[in-house]
Amino acid sequence: MSDTVLSSATREVVIGFDRPFVIIGERINPTGRRKLAEELTAGDFSTVVADAIAQVEAGAHMLDVNAGIPLADEPAILAQAIELVQSITDVPLCIDSSIVEALEAGLAVYRGKALVNSVTGEEERLESVLPLVKKYGAAVVAISNDETGISEDPDVRFAVARRIVERAADHGIARADVVVDPLVMPIGAMGTAGRQVFRLVRRLRDELGVNTTCGASNIAFGLPSRHALSAAFLTMAATSGMTSAITNALSPDIQRAAAAADVLLGHDPDCMTWIGRYRDGGAGGGAATSDGAGGRRRGGREGRRRATAQEP
Amino acid sequence: MSDTVLSSATREVVIGFDRPFVIIGERINPTGRRKLAEELTAGDFSTVVADAIAQVEAGAHMLDVNAGIPLADEPAILAQAIELVQSITDVPLCIDSSIVEALEAGLAVYRGKALVNSVTGEEERLESVLPLVKKYGAAVVAISNDETGISEDPDVRFAVARRIVERAADHGIARADVVVDPLVMPIGAMGTAGRQVFRLVRRLRDELGVNTTCGASNIAFGLPSRHALSAAFLTMAATSGMTSAITNALSPDIQRAAAAADVLLGHDPDCMTWIGRYRDGGAGGGAATSDGAGGRRRGGREGRRRATAQEP
Repeated sequence: MSDTVLSSATREVVIGFDRPFVIIGERINPTGRRKLAEELTAGDFSTVVADAIAQVEAGAHMLDVNAGIPLADEPAILAQAIELVQSITDVPLCIDSSIVEALEAGLAVYRGKALVNSVTGEEERLESVLPLVKKYGAAVVAISNDETGISEDPDVRFAVARRIVERAADHGIARADVVVDPLVMPIGAMGTAGRQVFRLVRRLRDELGVNTTCGASNIAFGLPSRHALSAAFLTMAATSGMTSAITNALSPDIQRAAAAADVLLGHDPDCMTWIGRYRDGGAGGGAATSDGAGGRRRGGREGRRRATAQEP
Repeated sequence: MSDTVLSSATREVVIGFDRPFVIIGERINPTGRRKLAEELTAGDFSTVVADAIAQVEAGAHMLDVNAGIPLADEPAILAQAIELVQSITDVPLCIDSSIVEALEAGLAVYRGKALVNSVTGEEERLESVLPLVKKYGAAVVAISNDETGISEDPDVRFAVARRIVERAADHGIARADVVVDPLVMPIGAMGTAGRQVFRLVRRLRDELGVNTTCGASNIAFGLPSRHALSAAFLTMAATSGMTSAITNALSPDIQRAAAAADVLLGHDPDCMTWIGRYRDGGAGGGAATSDGAGGRRRGGREGRRRATAQEP
C-alpha cells in the first residue's frame, strides 16, 4: 500500500501512486528572504499569513513551513507559525527544520498528521528524528544523503533511502509514512541530474514501494526560464513515479504541469480538474474554484479529500 | 544502433535514443484546411511556402508534407509540393500520403533520404509501401494498426509494430529505418491513453530497439489549453523514450517542451540550446538563431547536423 495519508485537524491529503500529484508550497521559508527573516524575528507573521493564503488559493495541497533563522529562537517561531497557518488554512503541513527541537515544538502544537521535513541517513539524525515522528504519529521526508554527504551515484542514494526506510521500520514507522527525497541537483551543473532522478524515482517506487518528493525548483537553478524548466521536470518526474514535490505553488507553469501530469497519468478522471481550470483558455493562472466551505480547494480534486468540509 | 538518419540534399537529421528530440512540423496538410485544399487544387502553393518557412523558423527539424485532397491528382500535387519545399528549406521531409502512388511520386523527386509516412501492419500496405521504401533508400513510419483496426490493447499494438519491423527486415530495410508510431488516442475519450503510450514507447525502445514518433496533438483533442497539454505529453513521452513527434512546431509550448526535455534527458550539453533560446526570459517564442547558411537552424543544435553547411 503506497498511500501516505497526511491531515490537518479537518482535512486529509493522500500522496500515492494512483493519486493526483501533491504540490507542497515551498514559500514559507526565510532562507534567502531577508525581509521575512527580519519580520519573523520581530514577531511579525503577516507575510506568513499572506504566503499561506496565496499558495492555497493557487492550488497548493500542502504547505511547507520553515522558520530557519540563524540565532533566532527557531522552535518558538516555528511553533507559532504552524499554529497561525493552521488557524487560517485547512491544508496539512510539512514541518521543516534542521533543528530537532524545532521539529518537536512544531509537532507539539500541530493538529492532525504532519509531514516532518526531514530525516537523512545520518546516524544522529535518524536516532533523533525518527523517535519524534513515531511519538507524534507523523510521516517523514527521508533525504537520501548520509554522513558522507550527497553521493553523485544514484545507486548509493538508493541504498541510503533503503536504510532510512528500514530504520524507520525499526522505530515502528510504516513504509507508507516515509516519503523519499532522492535529491535533485541543478542540471546546469550536472547534465545527468535529470536522468539520475528519473531512474532513481522509478527504483524507489518499483523496488522500495515508497512515495517520493523533491525540491523541484533545484533542477533549474541558475538557468533562464526557470519555472518552465521546473514544470517540465515535474511532468517528467511524475512519469517516472514521483508523487509529490515541494515547489513553487504560485507558478502557473508548475500548476499546469501538475494538472497535465494528472490528466496524462490517468489521475484526473474525465479530465474534470483540467477542464475546470483551463476551459476558458486560461494561461494557467492560479484561479482556484472555491467550494464555499472555506477550504480554497482546487476544483475537481474532491477525490483527495476524505474529511468533511467545514469552516476553518 | 538506434539512429535513424534522414537527409535533404544537403543536411542530415538524426532521430536517436541519445539525440535531441526531433520535431516534425505537421502544418503542411490540407486535412481540415479547406482553403489550403482549394489552393493546392488550383496549383497555388503560396501557403505551402509560408508554412514551410514559418515552421523551420520556429525550430522544426523536419517537415511533414501531405497533399491528401479528395478527387485531386494527389501524386502530382505532392511531388510538386515536395520539390518546392526542398527548394526553399534544407530540412529533411516526411512524405505523407495514404496513396501509394503519391508516396512514389514524392520519393521520385525527393533529394536525400526521406521519411515515408506511413506503412501499417495491413498486408496490402506492407507489400506496397515497403518495396518503395527499399527502392528509394528511405526510412518509414510504422503505424501500429492492422486489418483489425487500432487495438485498445497496447500489447497488440506492440505485436503489430514488431511484425512490421520483421517484415521490413524481409525487404532489406534496417530496424533503424523503421520509426514506430504507437498511436496516440485522445485522453478525453480514453483516460488510459497516456499511460498506455508511455508504457508502449518504453517497450518499443527497450525490447524492439526502435525510434518512435507520434501525432502528439491527438492526445489533447477536444480539451482546453490543448497546446499546454500536448506539450506536457511530449515531455512525458520523451521521458518514456519517444524520440520524435509530428506536431505543431509553431506552438511556443511545444518548442519549449522539446527543449526542456532535451535539457532534462541530458541531450542539450551544458544547456546551450536552452540558454540560447530563453536567456532573455523569452516566453518561448520561436526565435531561431540563423547561422547565415540559409538553414534557419536552431541555435546550439549543431551536434545534430553532420553535413557541411552550404547555401541552399
